Amino acid sequence: MLEQVDLDHKTAKEDYKAEHDALMARLIVLQVKAMQAGIGTVVMFDGWKGAGKGSRISDLAYNLDARYMNVHTLSDFDVHAHREFCEKHPGVTGFYPFMQEFWGALGERGRMTIYEQGWYAAARRLMAKGDDPQARARETVESIGDFERILADNGYVVVKFFVHISQKEQERRLRKLADNPDTSWRLKGGGIPGKDEYAARYEEFDKTLSLTDADHAHWVLVNGEDKRTANLTIARTLVTELERALSRKEDPAAAAAARKAAENSAGALAQATDPRTRSAEESALVLEAARAQAAEQATFAPRHSRFKMVDRPVRLADVDNTLSLARADYSKALKEEQKRLGELELKMYRARVPLMIVYEGDDAAGKGGNIKRVAQAIDARGYTVFPSAAPTKPELMHPFLWRYWTRLPKAGHVGIYDRSWYGRILVERVEGFASPEEVFHAYDEINEFERELVEWGAILLKFWVAVDPDEQLRRFEEREANPAKQWKITPEDWRNRDKHPQYAAAVDDMFRLTSTPAAPWRILESTDKLHARVKALRTINKALEDRLG
Amino acid sequence: MLEQVDLDHKTAKEDYKAEHDALMARLIVLQVKAMQAGIGTVVMFDGWKGAGKGSRISDLAYNLDARYMNVHTLSDFDVHAHREFCEKHPGVTGFYPFMQEFWGALGERGRMTIYEQGWYAAARRLMAKGDDPQARARETVESIGDFERILADNGYVVVKFFVHISQKEQERRLRKLADNPDTSWRLKGGGIPGKDEYAARYEEFDKTLSLTDADHAHWVLVNGEDKRTANLTIARTLVTELERALSRKEDPAAAAAARKAAENSAGALAQATDPRTRSAEESALVLEAARAQAAEQATFAPRHSRFKMVDRPVRLADVDNTLSLARADYSKALKEEQKRLGELELKMYRARVPLMIVYEGDDAAGKGGNIKRVAQAIDARGYTVFPSAAPTKPELMHPFLWRYWTRLPKAGHVGIYDRSWYGRILVERVEGFASPEEVFHAYDEINEFERELVEWGAILLKFWVAVDPDEQLRRFEEREANPAKQWKITPEDWRNRDKHPQYAAAVDDMFRLTSTPAAPWRILESTDKLHARVKALRTINKALEDRLG
Repeated sequence: MLEQVDLDHKTAKEDYKAEHDALMARLIVLQVKAMQAGIGTVVMFDGWKGAGKGSRISDLAYNLDARYMNVHTLSDFDVHAHREFCEKHPGVTGFYPFMQEFWGALGERGRMTIYEQGWYAAARRLMAKGDDPQARARETVESIGDFERILADNGYVVVKFFVHISQKEQERRLRKLADNPDTSWRLKGGGIPGKDEYAARYEEFDKTLSLTDADHAHWVLVNGEDKRTANLTIARTLVTELERALSRKEDPAAAAAARKAAENSAGALAQATDPRTRSAEESALVLEAARAQAAEQATFAPRHSRFKMVDRPVRLADVDNTLSLARADYSKALKEEQKRLGELELKMYRARVPLMIVYEGDDAAGKGGNIKRVAQAIDARGYTVFPSAAPTKPELMHPFLWRYWTRLPKAGHVGIYDRSWYGRILVERVEGFASPEEVFHAYDEINEFERELVEWGAILLKFWVAVDPDEQLRRFEEREANPAKQWKITPEDWRNRDKHPQYAAAVDDMFRLTSTPAAPWRILESTDKLHARVKALRTINKALEDRLG
Repeated sequence: MLEQVDLDHKTAKEDYKAEHDALMARLIVLQVKAMQAGIGTVVMFDGWKGAGKGSRISDLAYNLDARYMNVHTLSDFDVHAHREFCEKHPGVTGFYPFMQEFWGALGERGRMTIYEQGWYAAARRLMAKGDDPQARARETVESIGDFERILADNGYVVVKFFVHISQKEQERRLRKLADNPDTSWRLKGGGIPGKDEYAARYEEFDKTLSLTDADHAHWVLVNGEDKRTANLTIARTLVTELERALSRKEDPAAAAAARKAAENSAGALAQATDPRTRSAEESALVLEAARAQAAEQATFAPRHSRFKMVDRPVRLADVDNTLSLARADYSKALKEEQKRLGELELKMYRARVPLMIVYEGDDAAGKGGNIKRVAQAIDARGYTVFPSAAPTKPELMHPFLWRYWTRLPKAGHVGIYDRSWYGRILVERVEGFASPEEVFHAYDEINEFERELVEWGAILLKFWVAVDPDEQLRRFEEREANPAKQWKITPEDWRNRDKHPQYAAAVDDMFRLTSTPAAPWRILESTDKLHARVKALRTINKALEDRLG
């Protein structure tokens, strides 16, 4: 692709000013419109060392409103420390996943996030490390592709600029930097590449650009030898992309009205009557309405995932509510398994293996008590419990995964998720908080996220905590009767029971579409909580032993 | 103080279990109550190496609900890299202020945050660095005291445990760790202190404990030689402190009702009429009501700060609305000053000086345009503009400074604040979003925060952007008439004009009570925006030159 850049093209000063001023005036208006419409813009600048990426960003920022922009600069990277970490901790690629720094830096929808060097530069740095670069290249290209698509699916415009210069020009510029004591530090110890090195990198760049040029995230090649030409290319691209995105964006008022209407019709019948005092006839009507809605919502969910699943994913129909454990057996087994986990956790810490445990399940199934028995076994400095309350405004203004992108355990630590990113395809699907299209995309977004975690080196365990509906009712009533437990039960919980068919459909879809071999769903039969607790501990211990040998 | 610990005291197993179980049962209930009441708990564990701080935390976490707890472990610290940084960058103490890691780790009110080693351990580490340890000690003791008081004032219970052991016991335990290859890594290369070293540290600990034992943040000494005795001391303390805090806490429903009532009466008159169509008589009534409220609110503000102020702080009465700059002079000066700033910023980056620029001011005074001219001059990778939108829920559940504690520029970078932490004593004071008591405390909390920033090495510039009221009205009307600018003006802006007397009183109090010599308020007379822009740039450039020589 790079041969398409006409490096000899120069823009005359008199031609430049008028066009550039007009483009910038337009771009300022588009920036405000994008902010109002909640369209995020992600702009990445990649290119040769010395090509002027930073100057191009500064020229852009000069004209735009800095209050609606973030600039992220690629973090410093200690190659030596990274190599040492990887050698000492085989199977773990770093303290955090490769993409984490870019995930965290992503601005809200409505804002412009500029990455000065981004995931491609980071990937090149990693691949230079040398351990099976081919496999690593495949993985990172996949991670990158996933991220860019998630951005596009979540209302971001993604533009990638590659700033190109010739070998001669690069040598001239870097030489100039090196010769001036005030600027020589900018080379950061790296030398000036010769012809052969430039040629090798040229080929590499060219290949990557072709491989990663996507409809939703085009590469735009920029002539870095003439800054006027470069600025015009950049401005023209941004104007075009933002105008296209704004015209695509449906009228937000109409969309909100449609969603509101859907919400009302779905909930109206169930809301009209109190589940606790309802007649048999009313109950039948509520159930029928719920089933109809479940059938309708089933069309939201994709039939297949592009990921390979385990051969026989679990199903709700398989839940065995009779499983139980006698109190005496429980006490003994709990003690044993907690001790074992404590020992394994120490080994896990030293091997810097990240462990992530996801709890989803029915209301009142006993998630909290189960989590408690796991946490008890671990050094309190070694784990974090991440609860999933209703999303905050900044969370709503980001891709739904963002709140988890930024809530990962550090390598060697345990993250326990009391509900999780699966909220998107459970409560948000059933309650209509997410649009059908968003739900549709979410299954594979989740699979991608989890692949990323597993590649990082994480052990990922996903528990569905299940309870028999009669036992759940008993627990609800007990909570209502007990003043110390009343805060645990809300009208919401009762209403969720009404929506059992919709939830069941969503759960079975989740099992079917997100049970990858590396992270299958597992059921904790928690009609008897004692059984479920010991099963959780045994499952965790087995997974740790399998990994740690 | 340490001599008060009876290290020979042992608790028998049979005495322990019953009391400990009862305390824990009580503590679990208190944890839920504190969560519901929005009382945060900060628990710090300090003490000798090998005293079992981590085990005590694990025992506590074993019993409590892990979903409402965070555990923060003191970060690793590369003494060598830190020393190198400080030598290379005199006047700057690190990439972030000393307390930043503890600020960031603070959990929401309602949660329990446990610090395993905290600010005291961090301070000891820093003081070991050697450059004027006396001065450094005074500073850090002050920083620590401020933080603990801010926590107490913001609805946190603060408990500090010091886990004590004798020299003999320490030697025995560390020797055991060192001899076992599975645990020797825990010593992290540090040796086993001998008698003299222990004695020296004993004296140091003892002195720090006495100096920093405060009513709102007591030290509780724990016998680390007997874990049962230790656990009982810890549990008893937490039960007592949480019960005391809960009994002090006023009925939240009553408090909310009172605040609501105050809000309504204050705003009712102004809300009832539209400022744009109001008669002269109505306007006079609104103004009178506003003046009365300003007088009443004046009682919120403290008369004096415990900090020393500059001799003659600015006052609103001094604002000279006639200052202006001809367009031709402006263009020339702007170009010159922007160039100068660009050059200084590069120097500043190399010296790793953090620069923080605060913009507060009247609506439509021209903050945005002023910020733009400053940002334009700086490499886009070197600055961040931090806007201050309405606080999010997590922000409301933390001390008001938290959103700025976690939004600092890294050393060498520029942070530009488009409105700032001063919102607390401006809009939150006038609108009653903060209680009189909270406003009262805020002045010195802000002075403390800024002292911390200055000690870190930051240049802190605070601009009040002022506009003549008639000119402001003209700009409002212009914004309303211009479709491209309508989004910039809201009914809120009109209502704020009604509250001019209250705002003026708040602004003058702010000038008077937060103009410290290191960070005085400066006025940018922005009735003529051109004048204000050049003045901002000149002020910034002068401050940078003064620092960089």
